[in-house]
Amino acid sequence: MVARRNPVPKPYHQVHALAFAPLFFQAAMAARNMGVLTAVHASKAEGLTPAEVAERANVSRYAARVLLEGCLAIELVALESGRYRLTDAGRLWLFDRMTKVNANFVQDICYRGAVHLEESLRSGKPAGLQVFGNWPTIYEGLTELPPQAQESWFAFDHYYSDGAFPIALERVFAGRPRRLLDVGGNTGKWALLCLGHDPDVEVTVLDHAGQLDRVKQNAVSSGLSSRLRTHAIDLLDHGRAFPTGFDVVWMSQFLDCFGEEDIVKLIERAKAALAPGGRIYIMEAFWDRQPNDVGALCVQGLSLYFTCMANGTSRMYHSQDFLELIPAAGLRVEADEEIGPSHTLLTCVLPRASS
Amino acid sequence: MVARRNPVPKPYHQVHALAFAPLFFQAAMAARNMGVLTAVHASKAEGLTPAEVAERANVSRYAARVLLEGCLAIELVALESGRYRLTDAGRLWLFDRMTKVNANFVQDICYRGAVHLEESLRSGKPAGLQVFGNWPTIYEGLTELPPQAQESWFAFDHYYSDGAFPIALERVFAGRPRRLLDVGGNTGKWALLCLGHDPDVEVTVLDHAGQLDRVKQNAVSSGLSSRLRTHAIDLLDHGRAFPTGFDVVWMSQFLDCFGEEDIVKLIERAKAALAPGGRIYIMEAFWDRQPNDVGALCVQGLSLYFTCMANGTSRMYHSQDFLELIPAAGLRVEADEEIGPSHTLLTCVLPRASS
Repeated sequence: MVARRNPVPKPYHQVHALAFAPLFFQAAMAARNMGVLTAVHASKAEGLTPAEVAERANVSRYAARVLLEGCLAIELVALESGRYRLTDAGRLWLFDRMTKVNANFVQDICYRGAVHLEESLRSGKPAGLQVFGNWPTIYEGLTELPPQAQESWFAFDHYYSDGAFPIALERVFAGRPRRLLDVGGNTGKWALLCLGHDPDVEVTVLDHAGQLDRVKQNAVSSGLSSRLRTHAIDLLDHGRAFPTGFDVVWMSQFLDCFGEEDIVKLIERAKAALAPGGRIYIMEAFWDRQPNDVGALCVQGLSLYFTCMANGTSRMYHSQDFLELIPAAGLRVEADEEIGPSHTLLTCVLPRASS
Repeated sequence: MVARRNPVPKPYHQVHALAFAPLFFQAAMAARNMGVLTAVHASKAEGLTPAEVAERANVSRYAARVLLEGCLAIELVALESGRYRLTDAGRLWLFDRMTKVNANFVQDICYRGAVHLEESLRSGKPAGLQVFGNWPTIYEGLTELPPQAQESWFAFDHYYSDGAFPIALERVFAGRPRRLLDVGGNTGKWALLCLGHDPDVEVTVLDHAGQLDRVKQNAVSSGLSSRLRTHAIDLLDHGRAFPTGFDVVWMSQFLDCFGEEDIVKLIERAKAALAPGGRIYIMEAFWDRQPNDVGALCVQGLSLYFTCMANGTSRMYHSQDFLELIPAAGLRVEADEEIGPSHTLLTCVLPRASS
């Protein structure tokens, strides 16, 4: 039944798939969540008819047909002699952790607000955030998002740092820092790693007040709260200094949450927090430093989240952008290293003349 | 700057592009609507830097960067030595009429409601329609949708019938019908074509009352109202007979708006409306009869609109589905013809035994 179809030049396929992309995305999510793809997968090479899929996934025949035909269009399933089978892409959609983390993040955090992208770009504000609440940025509202949205947000954030953190930990602790400042510490994942890694280090987490409650709870449950300090601050109020005297200031996946002018101010505030001989570590996923096209695509897609949902002013950066902003804040890049497949660790120190 | 990137197997690219698809769709729409792609296009092979794009499109540098990098990920633009150029796909996205008609339809009609796809499939109701109003189906609400949504809906509907109507007109009028019933006549496009084509034909349009006002207005402006009749009816109330005595009953892109059981009932009501020797013409875009993969993809994508926005029960059909439903309604397919690239015209008559 596909014999009549002729191939057309790739760009035609590309733009029409893009035109229907939101509908296909929803079909792929529903097919995954309603068990349609799982039923097809379980049938292995034999495949299933739509009626069999309906029965095994316990959905209507209509639902089975609509979802199978939608997934056929985007090649998550293949159809032969009336029977549907899962493709390689369908298996990834169903089982690959990174794919699920990305898709859930886009569905639960970004989908509804993304229609306000143009408005966000015109106003410089995250106009899509209105679907959740009236905060200036998503960070103030993070702990008040619906549970599923929070789960998808943190799963996304952690997925991309989980692999990089242990490698970065070795680098950062090579210099045996005694006092570490974790700027934008989130759930405290990095802080707890540090406290567990070195029994003598003291970690101060700097973040919005709402986040810090969670960090403290997590530290208590891990039995690591005695060497944890927290410090609530409005990160965008550049008149407010960071606490001082730190051997290390750590900023991971943090500065990308700000526009370029704020990044310079934040690095300046971080600089003022250093003890003599201290270092600032900046860990980021730069889109030009990804190992392949898929990594670059994910990072560039994430920029759009920052525009319409997070803050309206930040994005995922090109490494060159940061390599220019750091000297603008009066620091020198001492080391520029790859950390795992996606991340870059920039070690920043005071310029030689003044150190 | 792309030298570090290695290709990965296609399915990985496919699923991650799908995971971020709603964001990329919005980026592509904003880049088109804000003049970013037009500026890049005007630069021809020379290309533009993000700063130049910002200036020429009169958007912020931030907006230019975010949209260019988003469009780079989905290959609407290409980047070389810091300058962006439009790709073949970018040119289609910007200029191809079918692409624009599809994309505007998805954006203005489907995007917001599509997140309710799973709920629609579970309930058998168009749960996404709530974003516009509380009608049981979109047809009752069509004339009350926001103006831009209406424009995109009718542009979509007409785009796909425009090419097919003149060819179908020749076929239908070969038999010189005197009285024609146009079931689900929409804006009256087909009815007016018929009235203009044959000075002796009388056309009755059957539709929801809201639609008929527009049909009448259009007939008056075209000076063709004297041979036009209208008949308001609830098409889903199968206890209500159609008016009778017609040489031709015409149903174009109409039956796909219903589930299978309703289709059988509607064909039965159409059959009862025929004069002796009359014919029912059914024109549809079947997904298995499209000339290529792109056509099939568009038709399968459209099914998802029916689920979440239109009625929750219909879809775009496989030709075999209709070839089984027509005999179930007591009719015989006399002719099965291709009409233009996308459509099939089924001519249906009473079975020989009873004619």
